[in-house]
Amino acid sequence: MNTKFILYLLTNIFKYFAYSLVVPFVISICYQEGFKVYTSYLFLMILLLMVSYFSSKEYPEDQEFYIKDAFFVVALTWILIPFLSALPFVFSQQIPNIIDAFFETVSGYTTTGASILDDVEALSKSMVFWRSFTHFIGGLGVLVFVLAILPKGKNKALYLLKAEVPGPTVGKIAAKVSYNSKILIIIYCVLTVVIALLLWIGGMDFLDAWIHAFGTAGTGGFSSKNLGVAHYDSSFIDWVITTGMILSGINFNLFYLIILGNVKQVFKSEELRYYLLCIVSCIALICWDVSHLYTSFWDMLRDVSFSVATIITCTGFAIADFDTWPALSHTIIITLMFIGGCAGSTAGGFKFTRVVLAMKKIFAEFRKVGQPSKIVNMKLDGKILEKETIEGVGTYFMIYTFTVIILILLVAPDSADFLTALSAVATTFNNVGVGLGAVGPGHSFASFTYFSKFVFSMGMILGRLEILPLLILFLPRTYKKIN
Amino acid sequence: MNTKFILYLLTNIFKYFAYSLVVPFVISICYQEGFKVYTSYLFLMILLLMVSYFSSKEYPEDQEFYIKDAFFVVALTWILIPFLSALPFVFSQQIPNIIDAFFETVSGYTTTGASILDDVEALSKSMVFWRSFTHFIGGLGVLVFVLAILPKGKNKALYLLKAEVPGPTVGKIAAKVSYNSKILIIIYCVLTVVIALLLWIGGMDFLDAWIHAFGTAGTGGFSSKNLGVAHYDSSFIDWVITTGMILSGINFNLFYLIILGNVKQVFKSEELRYYLLCIVSCIALICWDVSHLYTSFWDMLRDVSFSVATIITCTGFAIADFDTWPALSHTIIITLMFIGGCAGSTAGGFKFTRVVLAMKKIFAEFRKVGQPSKIVNMKLDGKILEKETIEGVGTYFMIYTFTVIILILLVAPDSADFLTALSAVATTFNNVGVGLGAVGPGHSFASFTYFSKFVFSMGMILGRLEILPLLILFLPRTYKKIN
Repeated sequence: MNTKFILYLLTNIFKYFAYSLVVPFVISICYQEGFKVYTSYLFLMILLLMVSYFSSKEYPEDQEFYIKDAFFVVALTWILIPFLSALPFVFSQQIPNIIDAFFETVSGYTTTGASILDDVEALSKSMVFWRSFTHFIGGLGVLVFVLAILPKGKNKALYLLKAEVPGPTVGKIAAKVSYNSKILIIIYCVLTVVIALLLWIGGMDFLDAWIHAFGTAGTGGFSSKNLGVAHYDSSFIDWVITTGMILSGINFNLFYLIILGNVKQVFKSEELRYYLLCIVSCIALICWDVSHLYTSFWDMLRDVSFSVATIITCTGFAIADFDTWPALSHTIIITLMFIGGCAGSTAGGFKFTRVVLAMKKIFAEFRKVGQPSKIVNMKLDGKILEKETIEGVGTYFMIYTFTVIILILLVAPDSADFLTALSAVATTFNNVGVGLGAVGPGHSFASFTYFSKFVFSMGMILGRLEILPLLILFLPRTYKKIN
Repeated sequence: MNTKFILYLLTNIFKYFAYSLVVPFVISICYQEGFKVYTSYLFLMILLLMVSYFSSKEYPEDQEFYIKDAFFVVALTWILIPFLSALPFVFSQQIPNIIDAFFETVSGYTTTGASILDDVEALSKSMVFWRSFTHFIGGLGVLVFVLAILPKGKNKALYLLKAEVPGPTVGKIAAKVSYNSKILIIIYCVLTVVIALLLWIGGMDFLDAWIHAFGTAGTGGFSSKNLGVAHYDSSFIDWVITTGMILSGINFNLFYLIILGNVKQVFKSEELRYYLLCIVSCIALICWDVSHLYTSFWDMLRDVSFSVATIITCTGFAIADFDTWPALSHTIIITLMFIGGCAGSTAGGFKFTRVVLAMKKIFAEFRKVGQPSKIVNMKLDGKILEKETIEGVGTYFMIYTFTVIILILLVAPDSADFLTALSAVATTFNNVGVGLGAVGPGHSFASFTYFSKFVFSMGMILGRLEILPLLILFLPRTYKKIN
């Protein structure tokens, strides 16, 4: 491993992380939140700056960097940064237990939005902001931000981004655009600002508008209110967030194509077409299933659209208690939780591209029934798919299912029933944030034991990094080669 | 398609099916069940013999036979035979509705054991016997029996058996032994007779001993009592059935190896070792989970062993109401339902071999983390696995999951809750027979609508034939080529 370069990267991550603490620190001063809160931020900031000051500051000559180095840096970053971010909550005693605070920040960075807090409003303003700010950073990825600031190397960025940006790599556009992470950041920031402004216009106060914009664009789901978005009970706000979530679930590369003026190619994207088709059909099916529970069609449409958007994009906001909906709706909700948003978006889950590829494979097999030697070519966006891409989906599906089963078995002894265990794992591992049963809308993860909370935290990171990169931290061979 | 040969096969199937009706007919006379019952069997017998008399009886010259023909015959047989077997129930008015009766016989032939009968004891003795006799036939496969009687052709038997005997083909032994289906039948019959005798000694009356032996060796699960095996409340009977189920879940080829004196190779079988390891670990885990519900260790061990055996072998007998067990036990039970028994056994599910192969693939990927170009060879029983075998598992897993989701969506509108829909589909599609929630131990499928019952029936056949062969009946191209 290239230890020097890894240290250089980590030093820079710490430095920029320290800078970002300035925002909640200023907010805490504006709201006069007291000495305990100020020092929580300050202490961490000074600590981090000191660490990064004494580490190597020079840009290393040797930039040779392999996939395993990239996995190592990404995995370490995604454990360390949530841990460090949790410290202000512990120092200020607003979330006294480190495992609780770690769960909360992991949930933030992975844009899950699951919470162990029964009373969010008891936190101070700056802490609520800091909690949601993690969505903004995590939505795109910690390293995506840091790499945009650092001077460019040869291949390093590509490997790092591949390890951090979820989804299978299909086209070459994805790789090219990911490389140019600055454009991704600009698209993401514009989306966030527009949502924040609209929510502000819709009646939220300035800080809350930002908090909910982070939760929407990052598909996170943290709110500043105990009732969440339902607190506002405003049609306008609900529809802004619904639209914002659906847009954030789209592959950001498509926005890039729009900026380039290549609108035609956007609508040629099969992933986008199936994604929108899936949203519309699920809304229609659930409406049919819950129609007896509503008197107003528009109220139903608002609730169902919001719920479908929040689940498929793995955001985790809730305005309706879908735990009370019938079995068909529950089936759709749990299926959507696992499917997730498009590859290259801020959404979690198995990723829509993979589902589209899997469906293509399934129908190709159907066409081959009884004719095993028949050759059926599979295409995506008009291009013939490579065999490796399809195989990769099958393999990832097996690893994914295996991980889900292990996680459910680990938390089941601590769960009230199977539905709670299943949906709690589904909602954390897929970075959704809201489940069914005892983790349904309006409930928190507060009642689980610390062991389960830790399992959920690891599950969220596993889900965010698509399992494999995190494993590198636990392989003995990783450390054998460190000089 | 080779229409002549297909007709010849179907004619013979009908003929031997008619002969098999003699058994319940004789029983109905012994028990003096009345004119209505006698005529139900007689009428069907005469009808079938007439049909087969007027069809082509001569052995066709042209025996060219392709996989698609084999799929067609197997699929048609598995729709027609349960349908015909259902007629005596309808004629005698003991199960008046044809969809109910079809559900019952499909459940029998696929060795599922799910029932729409709330009161089995209300049926006449011969009907209860006929219902369980379908387990005996279906356990090994309708065509396995018919082919053993017919004169041998060149390749036809192999294709037909491959389509009917579930599980992936891994070694060459499997293919060779399957070809020699007479040995399979002898092993199966010996197992059934031994279980029947032991149950008779254990205190069951003669007919009930046979009925429960069919349910055990065929991993079916139909009982002649409303309370099922729990009716007898005998430790001896419970342990006989537990052992019988576990043996029936083993690949029958291993018994063949024992007969050949090759015991060493039996214990080399990785599938067998993992299968037994899985049973022991699940029993231990569930015992730990339910220990607070029991006062006697041996009662607990009996209940848990029986339940694990009944679920992993997809039998569906029940002596304990595991619906009341905690979340961890439910998780294990639902996982086991999907895993199922060994390939080449009478058990259903995804098949243990596939799970072993999938696990090998998963751990191979883990070893490759960060080193994507590293080559990791996977071995089973000491032999290197072909790439196609592993790929096949991934593909089948996708098709399997897709089918499960579709089935759940179809029956969800008719289900009380998600757990009922999930476990009802899991239990029928995997040919288990007993689920959780509203289809838990002691409950029947009676309360579902006819639409759902039909979906479950199709689900059972899909699960038994491993999905693809059944599809051939619904492809237009199948009929285009019929001359």
